[in-house]
Amino acid sequence: MPDAKFFNRSQSFTLSEIAKLSGAVLADGVDGDQVMENVAPLDIATQQDLSFLDNVKYKEQFSKTEAGACFVQSEMVDIAPDGVALLISPTPYKSYALAAQAFYPNNTAEAFRSKNAHIDDSAQVPKTCVIHAGVVIEANVEIGEYVTIESGAIIKQGVQIGAHSRVGPNAVISHAIIGEHVNIYPGACIGQDGFGFAIDPAGYIKVPQLGRVRIGSHVEIGANTTIDRGAGPDTVIGQGTWIDNLVQIGHNVKIGKGCVIVSQVGISGSTVIEDYVVIGGQVGIAGHLKIGSGARLAAQSGIMKNIDPGQEMMGSPAVPIKDHMRQIIALKRLIKKK
Amino acid sequence: MPDAKFFNRSQSFTLSEIAKLSGAVLADGVDGDQVMENVAPLDIATQQDLSFLDNVKYKEQFSKTEAGACFVQSEMVDIAPDGVALLISPTPYKSYALAAQAFYPNNTAEAFRSKNAHIDDSAQVPKTCVIHAGVVIEANVEIGEYVTIESGAIIKQGVQIGAHSRVGPNAVISHAIIGEHVNIYPGACIGQDGFGFAIDPAGYIKVPQLGRVRIGSHVEIGANTTIDRGAGPDTVIGQGTWIDNLVQIGHNVKIGKGCVIVSQVGISGSTVIEDYVVIGGQVGIAGHLKIGSGARLAAQSGIMKNIDPGQEMMGSPAVPIKDHMRQIIALKRLIKKK
Amino acid sequence: MPDAKFFNRSQSFTLSEIAKLSGAVLADGVDGDQVMENVAPLDIATQQDLSFLDNVKYKEQFSKTEAGACFVQSEMVDIAPDGVALLISPTPYKSYALAAQAFYPNNTAEAFRSKNAHIDDSAQVPKTCVIHAGVVIEANVEIGEYVTIESGAIIKQGVQIGAHSRVGPNAVISHAIIGEHVNIYPGACIGQDGFGFAIDPAGYIKVPQLGRVRIGSHVEIGANTTIDRGAGPDTVIGQGTWIDNLVQIGHNVKIGKGCVIVSQVGISGSTVIEDYVVIGGQVGIAGHLKIGSGARLAAQSGIMKNIDPGQEMMGSPAVPIKDHMRQIIALKRLIKKK
Repeated sequence: MPDAKFFNRSQSFTLSEIAKLSGAVLADGVDGDQVMENVAPLDIATQQDLSFLDNVKYKEQFSKTEAGACFVQSEMVDIAPDGVALLISPTPYKSYALAAQAFYPNNTAEAFRSKNAHIDDSAQVPKTCVIHAGVVIEANVEIGEYVTIESGAIIKQGVQIGAHSRVGPNAVISHAIIGEHVNIYPGACIGQDGFGFAIDPAGYIKVPQLGRVRIGSHVEIGANTTIDRGAGPDTVIGQGTWIDNLVQIGHNVKIGKGCVIVSQVGISGSTVIEDYVVIGGQVGIAGHLKIGSGARLAAQSGIMKNIDPGQEMMGSPAVPIKDHMRQIIALKRLIKKK
Repeated sequence: MPDAKFFNRSQSFTLSEIAKLSGAVLADGVDGDQVMENVAPLDIATQQDLSFLDNVKYKEQFSKTEAGACFVQSEMVDIAPDGVALLISPTPYKSYALAAQAFYPNNTAEAFRSKNAHIDDSAQVPKTCVIHAGVVIEANVEIGEYVTIESGAIIKQGVQIGAHSRVGPNAVISHAIIGEHVNIYPGACIGQDGFGFAIDPAGYIKVPQLGRVRIGSHVEIGANTTIDRGAGPDTVIGQGTWIDNLVQIGHNVKIGKGCVIVSQVGISGSTVIEDYVVIGGQVGIAGHLKIGSGARLAAQSGIMKNIDPGQEMMGSPAVPIKDHMRQIIALKRLIKKK
Repeated sequence: MPDAKFFNRSQSFTLSEIAKLSGAVLADGVDGDQVMENVAPLDIATQQDLSFLDNVKYKEQFSKTEAGACFVQSEMVDIAPDGVALLISPTPYKSYALAAQAFYPNNTAEAFRSKNAHIDDSAQVPKTCVIHAGVVIEANVEIGEYVTIESGAIIKQGVQIGAHSRVGPNAVISHAIIGEHVNIYPGACIGQDGFGFAIDPAGYIKVPQLGRVRIGSHVEIGANTTIDRGAGPDTVIGQGTWIDNLVQIGHNVKIGKGCVIVSQVGISGSTVIEDYVVIGGQVGIAGHLKIGSGARLAAQSGIMKNIDPGQEMMGSPAVPIKDHMRQIIALKRLIKKK
């Protein structure tokens, strides 16, 4: 069960309460009054713990689990071990997420302002905020209610951060307008100059980067990720988009709503990513392209041209995923022939 | 136009003044006394704004722009919309860069030293410098005139930084000798130990990393980029080289003058990159290699052997770019045959 | 020789002393009383310097070196230039490492606690520790003897760090249990939330990340590397594993003992890496996989399925290294045919 040094459990719940808050239903014969004390993974859960099976790779763990209760899809009921109370859900991972949020709510800490934070007099920082030691908030910054700024984070002049957002330790934010419920992880750098210069025999000439970064609400930005501000237009991240660690987003990039961008992706300047695009780890996307809504780019792909909506691409340079699979097979045959 | 919360415009300029400072010439019939208030991208520029067309991909935006004036190459004059005063330049992007620098000069802020900076008594920090809150400057550091060190940056003992350089928020610098007009972006880590160990059955044995990092003048080093110090020789970055975000440069690497290294490139230990090499995003270069002057390595290439000067390479492992293109076509044919 | 501004030499040594501490033997005729003042690379070493030849690529440098003494394998004795005292070792790099450690011991600085560090009253920080300016140590942190925490590092509540470990400047650590003699480089982020969410039409639902990061002893973690904490299970790094800069390690990943993970590698969630696995730069590994003990993954490989122990893989998607080499040759032939 979660280490109490790091995580504060709210309370225990009955299976009926859990079913209700998670959108699951109790399997036949399950006692709704049975109490769950905690959540835990299948392999270490005990009779007091609630667990879940979502990925068939963990079917065997499920068949041996000692969990007291478990979210599963109805297809898995038959392989359940004895003694596990089943909560049936078409989306066990979602149900687990809701239950885990109930056991471990994301409470904002009580309002607090470290005397070791350096806040400019002209900055607006509501009393409901949590401001840790070593934070620097420069002139004319505007911070919303219930925002948490963790130790060592630097908020440069004029930045706006919406209510309920959180800035992780040692993150750096400049030239940015940030929505509500945004979560910025440690070490992320947002709003620095883009990589903009004009070629000249006497040495590259820096092009002043005069745009901003605009980030919609409910966005997540991973640890040590870098987002350059626009060169003239803004760099834009749409509402509800999740960005993982160590991602690079170049100047003027526009990302739509609900995209998922996995770790170490690089998106070059001025490229447009429409809504609900999913980009696998280490993908590279050239500049000035358009990636259509709902496209899916497999890990390590290299994208050198526009991608139509809904396309699934793979390889470097990327081709439709089926063609890529056939290329792989063709290559294997080629070396077997000899 | 640029957000006045973040950017301070210096003044307005007449088209004659702009032509003069940017190396452009006014097209026939343009009124040199017409005043430009600001710079802006083609799609949002108004009658008071100066814009530019550099990439043909934006020809359509150009044909509809409401900008008051625009830098263009002479070939584009014919498709210019009515009402736009044209400034003809063989290098519109360079001309724009110079004009934008005039509107938004990179003024060093007035000299300032936060009382919340921690500066060792033995460090030399001229009165012309700007030192923000939370900065740590350790013993025997030597900083030149007009240097800016932003909040949370850590300058470890003995480091030298030349005049007019800038160290971004939360950057970390140790064991380094840095030239003038160098721009280090937030979160960059320079001078830490390289990845040096000797294999031994009892556990890897750390090899003391006894070199430094030497950085020439007019170098740019991107956000969250990491540059390890030498193991014995120094790691060297030549004058005027531009390095983007999240780049890894291993110990003993020597990079020449005027190179361009795009985001997420990794250069392994002891490799030599000669002058004016251009390295696309996510390229990986093995250790102990030599990349000849003026070589160009396409994005995502994997470089496993020496590259001759001027070569253009692509693929992983990289081959000359024409061969790579033919391989791609051959692969496409291969799967069509069946 | 190493710059005395940055490195403190302990003393000089005779060749006999050096041979003894490094496991080398003096070649015939070498005077064991000859004194070495320092260590230096082959190309800049002088008569007072000790050097080494390990990689045959540097044979020519060796043949011209002016070093006073040099570690070499016995096969290289014949090409040694006159005047260099040879120390014969089957593992010259290891011998050099031991000698360099003697010249430049990794002394912990004298115990010191900056008055500008912010340490919660409930944190345990022994008097033997070195705590620099700007450090934040939160509630209930437990730090072992002789630990060094460099400027700007943030240690969040409840974290445990074993004796003799070192945390670099501006590193951020939360939700972690860290062993002894662990070396965390600047800017590394350890213990933040993993990339965990459930898909839902109304917006992604965050899954509380309730595990920790557990790091064994003698582990190295590179600059700006990110290690997410577990989602329920812990993320685990085994004893003696070396991780380079800008590496991403996802939630629930288990890494065994003595692994080597080169820069910019990405390891997706829940993957298991067994002992002594070597992973080249920029490799990407998908989630929920098992990489067998002693496997070797070439740089830029893309790993999409389980890898057997001892396998050597290359390519994206990765195949056994011999097959990959044959694929490369086959592709080259294919474009020559026409």
